[in-house]
Amino acid sequence: MRLIEGGSPPGTTVEPTLPGAYYTSEGIFRRELERIWFDTWLLAGRSDELAAPGDFFLRTVADESAIVVRNREDGISAFYNVCRHRGARLCSEASGTFKSAAVRCPYHSWTYDTLRGALIAAPNVPDGEHGFSRADFPLHPVRAEAWGGFLWLNFNADAPGLAAALGLPETAAFYDRYGLDALKLGKRISYDVQANWKIVMENALECLHCSHIHPELSRCTPPTLPRHWLHEDLPESFVFKHSGGMEMAPEFEAVNIDGRSRRARFPGLTEGDARTIYYAFIYPHVLFGFAPDYVFFFSVWPLGVAETQVHAYWLFHPAEMAKPGFDGSDAIAFWDATNRQDWEACRLVQQGNRSQMYRPGGVLVPSEWRVNKFRRYVLELVPPPAAF
Amino acid sequence: MRLIEGGSPPGTTVEPTLPGAYYTSEGIFRRELERIWFDTWLLAGRSDELAAPGDFFLRTVADESAIVVRNREDGISAFYNVCRHRGARLCSEASGTFKSAAVRCPYHSWTYDTLRGALIAAPNVPDGEHGFSRADFPLHPVRAEAWGGFLWLNFNADAPGLAAALGLPETAAFYDRYGLDALKLGKRISYDVQANWKIVMENALECLHCSHIHPELSRCTPPTLPRHWLHEDLPESFVFKHSGGMEMAPEFEAVNIDGRSRRARFPGLTEGDARTIYYAFIYPHVLFGFAPDYVFFFSVWPLGVAETQVHAYWLFHPAEMAKPGFDGSDAIAFWDATNRQDWEACRLVQQGNRSQMYRPGGVLVPSEWRVNKFRRYVLELVPPPAAF
Amino acid sequence: MRLIEGGSPPGTTVEPTLPGAYYTSEGIFRRELERIWFDTWLLAGRSDELAAPGDFFLRTVADESAIVVRNREDGISAFYNVCRHRGARLCSEASGTFKSAAVRCPYHSWTYDTLRGALIAAPNVPDGEHGFSRADFPLHPVRAEAWGGFLWLNFNADAPGLAAALGLPETAAFYDRYGLDALKLGKRISYDVQANWKIVMENALECLHCSHIHPELSRCTPPTLPRHWLHEDLPESFVFKHSGGMEMAPEFEAVNIDGRSRRARFPGLTEGDARTIYYAFIYPHVLFGFAPDYVFFFSVWPLGVAETQVHAYWLFHPAEMAKPGFDGSDAIAFWDATNRQDWEACRLVQQGNRSQMYRPGGVLVPSEWRVNKFRRYVLELVPPPAAF
Repeated sequence: MRLIEGGSPPGTTVEPTLPGAYYTSEGIFRRELERIWFDTWLLAGRSDELAAPGDFFLRTVADESAIVVRNREDGISAFYNVCRHRGARLCSEASGTFKSAAVRCPYHSWTYDTLRGALIAAPNVPDGEHGFSRADFPLHPVRAEAWGGFLWLNFNADAPGLAAALGLPETAAFYDRYGLDALKLGKRISYDVQANWKIVMENALECLHCSHIHPELSRCTPPTLPRHWLHEDLPESFVFKHSGGMEMAPEFEAVNIDGRSRRARFPGLTEGDARTIYYAFIYPHVLFGFAPDYVFFFSVWPLGVAETQVHAYWLFHPAEMAKPGFDGSDAIAFWDATNRQDWEACRLVQQGNRSQMYRPGGVLVPSEWRVNKFRRYVLELVPPPAAF
Repeated sequence: MRLIEGGSPPGTTVEPTLPGAYYTSEGIFRRELERIWFDTWLLAGRSDELAAPGDFFLRTVADESAIVVRNREDGISAFYNVCRHRGARLCSEASGTFKSAAVRCPYHSWTYDTLRGALIAAPNVPDGEHGFSRADFPLHPVRAEAWGGFLWLNFNADAPGLAAALGLPETAAFYDRYGLDALKLGKRISYDVQANWKIVMENALECLHCSHIHPELSRCTPPTLPRHWLHEDLPESFVFKHSGGMEMAPEFEAVNIDGRSRRARFPGLTEGDARTIYYAFIYPHVLFGFAPDYVFFFSVWPLGVAETQVHAYWLFHPAEMAKPGFDGSDAIAFWDATNRQDWEACRLVQQGNRSQMYRPGGVLVPSEWRVNKFRRYVLELVPPPAAF
Repeated sequence: MRLIEGGSPPGTTVEPTLPGAYYTSEGIFRRELERIWFDTWLLAGRSDELAAPGDFFLRTVADESAIVVRNREDGISAFYNVCRHRGARLCSEASGTFKSAAVRCPYHSWTYDTLRGALIAAPNVPDGEHGFSRADFPLHPVRAEAWGGFLWLNFNADAPGLAAALGLPETAAFYDRYGLDALKLGKRISYDVQANWKIVMENALECLHCSHIHPELSRCTPPTLPRHWLHEDLPESFVFKHSGGMEMAPEFEAVNIDGRSRRARFPGLTEGDARTIYYAFIYPHVLFGFAPDYVFFFSVWPLGVAETQVHAYWLFHPAEMAKPGFDGSDAIAFWDATNRQDWEACRLVQQGNRSQMYRPGGVLVPSEWRVNKFRRYVLELVPPPAAF
């Protein structure tokens, strides 16, 4: 990967956006679920969210809920949140701890081991009688893997492994010096956004709107300063996309509300890196922001065609978090304000995209070349219906 | 009918549940309305809810509302809650009294007799002029019949009579000694349940979940005590289904919160009956519980594919209710707590049944044989669509 | 136009209403949008609502939002409320003022001139480079015209002009003496009605319900007094429909709550007019009421198949409004009460129209001949589907 000082973005042409129906049609949303969401690796959270065996959190895609749990052997397992008996949702709490690291259905107490989802108790039927064998009713597995301290899911049990799909380690090598594996979770905030999931991602994929709706962000990384574009020699197929670096304003020592630095920067950074925030994306649903003293990221989860959940995370160096008086609120307030500004913009885009005048879609200007890449990714997986 | 002490349930095999679509598909719900709900006898309430001519209550099935009213000849009539003029809902209150025992539309005051629904006033058009005759515009009738003090409806005007459909009097003979006709309404509570109506019925049709979610019920009728199964020689076609008796714990004198008896038991009961609660079901939507000193029942009404209304009733002996200081709150609190525990379980089942993993459905263990009978009843009336 | 004292309405036959599906079907609603709402002149408001360049209000038809704005040349323009860039809704406030009389998108600050919607700034792309020309991206226009101080919209850019469509000036000549152009807005109230838009119009098109649900209105213009029917020699095609005059009760000096007159009557009225309120309708969505000392009107806007917005206006003579102590609250309270009574009736009709018993529809009595005219208008533009 090459870092090009002051390089310009590769976009040079005007392109169309996706047609309006991609943001409003139930039919296209159902095809996206099938072709994208239930067949790709999704970033579910951080390993240290699940500290002890039995700790779990849920992740939701439309009608589907997955349990992500630290299993009794201290690894991470994931399962469809559906009892094999009568189909009850096993667990409704967004996060918590399963007693004895086992998942017990609240209805008839069918109980599953968290390691491989084996049914270990079914109080209403004896094992091996009446043609019933517990072995026939394990929880439906969801693929789970970890990388860099991040936990990943894939609803497709036969999907290729995470590393191959993401093109690791090459795609992520640039970020190794941030010591991702060791980072600790400082804060998680979940947002409900009244917009299609792609509107949320397209918003993240360009910062031409930043000077118009993000006063805090624009003070910190002014759009007038040079961008540092990361150029890649990676195959087009990889969904891990690099973006570039935005330079901090001279009076800012940190990417936050007031520019005052409160934490030591990551050990491996150059002087240039220490004045830059780098952005990276993983299709279909992740934004990373690598600041000199923290890492911010979020993942985008579709609940419905026009309703999306965003889980945002702030990660810090463990040595900093161990210090007495550690306080990450400057970074949290900075992105929380920026996020909320974005969600309001996304809501307005969703409303306007319902217009008959938006059926053919809108226009992407050259500086929105990353949005155009994302458009092509979506169209390749979910081509327009024939009768479109 | 034979009462078998300590008999075991007839279920011996593992069976499938209904496929997931039966709990989530609008299309299947529409077919259920047509094939089941608008073509079967439904238990609407108690005769003494409608004490005087003009007293009415409403019952709702999806978009359909029925008015059940004590007519001017002191009988019970029922009508579609739709004015023949411009189609206004005639009545919005859940219950009340019609002045002069006539139904007056709030829009243009078309007024209908409650006996046969005849249009008796249409102030905006003279009778017999301009080709208009009041005789052409009676209310659309809903069949209404009474049995045992219970009021029944059938939206199909050509349906066979209630007694034949329910197999009366044979099917109900076991319960004659509870003096059903004379019982008085002590309390009615209506619940909204966020689940398909069949999930609510399937929940009522088995008590294997009781020890897991019903602490009050399990203390009173512990699952460890023997069941008394009622075996029948009735044709399969009858929808009045007997279940069996559950014995009270030795320290309980009543089926209630604290086990303390507050009312004389029904006169005709044996010593065994006085320590037993019997359950019976009428397909598609009624549960009865015959306790020694009261009768509890509820009926289940679909408002939408995943939204159901339950009307629960507590009936007592008139001699008991006439006593000063009569108090039924022990029985009411007992079932109200149990009901709410069940509705929460139903809500979780509805959520989980939306999963793609539940498309083929779940499993019924042998002890859920009554749920399996109910499944076969549903499948016979609403077979799976061809393209399923 | 002839004014016939004590004339009787032309209706002499019983007719059917529209079938139930016209009030409940999404499919028919979609066809109405296409055939009626996006191809007809709609009364959006009053000219003096938009006093200065940049003043705007929004009007909504289902998923479509229009901006109506006083442009920088002091005329009225209207545009689809959709940015040409990424499709964001440009404006969410129901009314307000655009700075510099230009519409700026809140997302990337694309900015449009209010005169013809020209894109005058697109900060994220230089004009004339990369194949991008601002000239290609003006706002989509909505036709706007004014008549009598009323502002009108047509979503069809190729629609014939307002005057021809309404049959002006002949159709409105009777009302010229009310000095419509010069009237001033006294009050606007917007209502949400839980009913199909046609139920709201049909309610306005007959007053046979008035004696039953409008006590205030019936005290003021008692149904027992003679109607003055306005007979027309206008082509059937005109959507501007005259109705007639209702005479005030002897003890009433004004069409209001208490009958006490508070304002001078319009200069050009006869003694007879001064004791009469005249009604007129413009299909598909306007009711006018011409009282001796004010003009009331409302327009009906479909948000969904069973959800409608009504914008009601009270207009007064400018000389009256200029007087110290001017107070229009007597007229406002009178119609506000009447409106709310009507919306409740409409809600009940919507509920009842969902019944399977209302599939063939109801009946229109002879005195509902105006509702029947409206029915024929709807059926001509939106015939029943073939498979109906």
